[in-house]
Amino acid sequence: MLTTNPLRAGPAERLAPPATFAIFGATGDLAQRKLLPALYNLYLDGLLPEAFALVGIGRRPGSDEHYREATLQAIQQFSRRAVDPARWPRFARFLHYWQMDPSDGTAYEQLARWLAILDVSAETQGNRVFYLATPPSLFPVIVRHLGAAGLAEERGAFARLVIEKPFGHDLASARELNAVVNAVFAEHQVYRIDHYLGKETVQNILVFRFGNGIIEPIWNRRYVDHCQITVAESSGIGSRAGFYEETGALRDVVANHMMQLVALVGMEPPLDLQADSVRDEKVKLLRAIQPLGPAQFTNVVRGQYTAGWIGGEWVPGYREEPGVAPDSQTETFVALKLLVENWRWAGVPFYLRHGKRLPRRVTEIAIQFKEPPRQFFSEADGGRPPPNVLVLRIQPDEGISLRFVAKGPGPALTPREVTMDFRYATSFDRDPPEAYERLLLDCLNGDSTLFARRDEIEAMWAIFDQVLHHQREDPALALHFYPAGTWGPAEADHLLQREGRAWRT
Amino acid sequence: MLTTNPLRAGPAERLAPPATFAIFGATGDLAQRKLLPALYNLYLDGLLPEAFALVGIGRRPGSDEHYREATLQAIQQFSRRAVDPARWPRFARFLHYWQMDPSDGTAYEQLARWLAILDVSAETQGNRVFYLATPPSLFPVIVRHLGAAGLAEERGAFARLVIEKPFGHDLASARELNAVVNAVFAEHQVYRIDHYLGKETVQNILVFRFGNGIIEPIWNRRYVDHCQITVAESSGIGSRAGFYEETGALRDVVANHMMQLVALVGMEPPLDLQADSVRDEKVKLLRAIQPLGPAQFTNVVRGQYTAGWIGGEWVPGYREEPGVAPDSQTETFVALKLLVENWRWAGVPFYLRHGKRLPRRVTEIAIQFKEPPRQFFSEADGGRPPPNVLVLRIQPDEGISLRFVAKGPGPALTPREVTMDFRYATSFDRDPPEAYERLLLDCLNGDSTLFARRDEIEAMWAIFDQVLHHQREDPALALHFYPAGTWGPAEADHLLQREGRAWRT
Repeated sequence: MLTTNPLRAGPAERLAPPATFAIFGATGDLAQRKLLPALYNLYLDGLLPEAFALVGIGRRPGSDEHYREATLQAIQQFSRRAVDPARWPRFARFLHYWQMDPSDGTAYEQLARWLAILDVSAETQGNRVFYLATPPSLFPVIVRHLGAAGLAEERGAFARLVIEKPFGHDLASARELNAVVNAVFAEHQVYRIDHYLGKETVQNILVFRFGNGIIEPIWNRRYVDHCQITVAESSGIGSRAGFYEETGALRDVVANHMMQLVALVGMEPPLDLQADSVRDEKVKLLRAIQPLGPAQFTNVVRGQYTAGWIGGEWVPGYREEPGVAPDSQTETFVALKLLVENWRWAGVPFYLRHGKRLPRRVTEIAIQFKEPPRQFFSEADGGRPPPNVLVLRIQPDEGISLRFVAKGPGPALTPREVTMDFRYATSFDRDPPEAYERLLLDCLNGDSTLFARRDEIEAMWAIFDQVLHHQREDPALALHFYPAGTWGPAEADHLLQREGRAWRT
Repeated sequence: MLTTNPLRAGPAERLAPPATFAIFGATGDLAQRKLLPALYNLYLDGLLPEAFALVGIGRRPGSDEHYREATLQAIQQFSRRAVDPARWPRFARFLHYWQMDPSDGTAYEQLARWLAILDVSAETQGNRVFYLATPPSLFPVIVRHLGAAGLAEERGAFARLVIEKPFGHDLASARELNAVVNAVFAEHQVYRIDHYLGKETVQNILVFRFGNGIIEPIWNRRYVDHCQITVAESSGIGSRAGFYEETGALRDVVANHMMQLVALVGMEPPLDLQADSVRDEKVKLLRAIQPLGPAQFTNVVRGQYTAGWIGGEWVPGYREEPGVAPDSQTETFVALKLLVENWRWAGVPFYLRHGKRLPRRVTEIAIQFKEPPRQFFSEADGGRPPPNVLVLRIQPDEGISLRFVAKGPGPALTPREVTMDFRYATSFDRDPPEAYERLLLDCLNGDSTLFARRDEIEAMWAIFDQVLHHQREDPALALHFYPAGTWGPAEADHLLQREGRAWRT
């Protein structure tokens, strides 16, 4: 492990150490679209060392040459920056292909022997990252076999495991997966990726909250009325019906990505930016959230889209999508209210909503502050001033805006709503790295700040476990339908209306 | 007096009551450039009643016809909106000229008789405003004669006196003037104009501070490091050498306009927006400021410009201006530190600077907040994050901006300085009224919120009285020279540097 925190280091100090980066599922979607382009961009930025090897592991027959060609095509299609013909050959030489059946235990012995040879030929000093870009059903198998082959051992070199969500499908299965993983890899070797944490705007939540002297004093129940977090998608489920039918909106987005946002917005200031300092505070926040038991099921609204218009296009309802059961009970929309029962947030609701086939794609966090006393501004001034709202726009149109009031022009002291705005695109000339670039580099550098820790994952599932277990039979969790292209079922609006509030539009 | 507060009324309710508006100094600069155009624009906005009379009083011979013609020319030259030929004749009929010598007591008997006739013919119901747009030496004379002729009496109608600064030239003379004025007019009849209070952006200080729930909690010594107020002018003294030689920068701008800004920024929330509620709080704030006695003279820097370049033009030094003594000790620049010794501001310096022949024209209030704890961001992240600064831009480019930090793009949590900005020009489509429009309408409507009260004027002078009396002989108050086109003498920088701070540039 490095002793300096790479989060705190300048770019020159972020150069990855010598290592072999092995991807299980080398020819799959994730590897092609995200992992290989991310590694190529790290290379372009000079952040990969000379002593580096990138091993694609797959079932299909193949050769290094063939894998290099396939990777070139993937990068040409998915990289944020074009392929530089002068620099491509060096990157191509990092690439190797290794054919094996990941469910065949004996194959791992061979893999181990070959990786040992690569350690020498590529001078990677025995450092290895194993990235599981396979279907989750293979995670336990691969992990056990890696362990059996001695590939999880760290002897003067690092061995790290990167896994992608889903980290289980409820509390019990998450615990089971964690038990399997941690039986082989110590927690400091495990990197659970939630790509939301790799987004610049998500990391900015920490910088914004703790880099500005005026934010922390007003970031609590005394001044905040409530918090709204929206992850809206206009797309449907595409070709992922099989996956989505089993998953649903709550598991797919709310119980991981959105809870990461809740944790970053709500957590206490950490001691420092070391991985465990940050994650300790996130876990504390997640544990302070009242779990959604049967008495709280009225704080949950489950929805499913029906056919409707989106952007001038007529789209089918969820139950009409190919591969979806005609009586599917899977939710494509969730709205809910969470209560954080600690000193900072008691009484301040966190409202979350996420859905597919909503009018537009937007992820944002809105902090609505309490109203000032109304002694000054009467109805005659054009009504009460609206409360301040701070909006952290995660995507698209990344930025921060503050709604406030200023004097409207004219002969009365009329408060008028105006907005102060900051946009990343116009403020920074540099193209920000993709989430995966950031996260793969952090992993190579041994920084797990932006990865989910075991207790974090389990704390998230604990909040939703009862909802997941009762959602198919409890009437309070029954599905409500909404036409595609609307902001979800009316019941989601009622969730806030009954408390005198409203969703942002 | 009206019983409703016009500040709280919508435009329709702001219509002025029937009245005669009499201007002493009818042919002078102030009347031509400001008062007549302001009244014309109020008329265009439908804010003047049908029953209205505008009386120009001057020494020169003239007629109504002649005065209407001269007024038309003044408005064509100085009005923010063009003359509407269809509506001009009605406005012209408001206009009357009355020739008299204001130092001749007997003339006021005639004036009173004629105004009584006008009350009937113009149906102005006996309401009268007397506006002293004369040299200040005439103020006591006119006030006494108005009183002797019974014109200050209110018998079922109002009689108001509007006076322009200078309200004296030190504490004793201000008290003397107030004594003369208040011997004739009760305080509720007196409207002391500081046109800064008519500016939209100055009134916005109240709306911004008390209309936003997140501002008041951080507006105090716990979160504010210091406040900087700058009134910079690039112009020199023009043709006003005679006036300026006697006045200087401290009396001309600091002891009135700038102290109004200090009072609005620093005051406690008033009970409501009634005139005396607001002015009570302003006076409290001004009285909490430590007067600048000899022990505080090191907190005052007096400067005078020498020749230099401004915007590519070589301009003469102050002592070379026509009409200025070659050994003039008059200051054209003041920088000073004020301490407000109350619970909100103890230990938070208010730094003020004002000067002529500075690099550009700008009036702004900058609130610099304290730094956050530095535990997160090391030098390796590109240095400590700069503290938050909220800037209220009074003129030009009217608006509000907030400097804060956000995550800079790239693989480290680098705090980068960015700005959220709000500009009046792009946020409001309506052309704001001129300061004088606002103030004359308020006076007609009996609202003195934006006018200085007797105790306010005296509290301002009390702060500076010892500086004014000792500035020509105390070495601590000696003049420092600065070339035209620079931000004042180096001593002004030292004033902040010795406390680890710096002026904004």
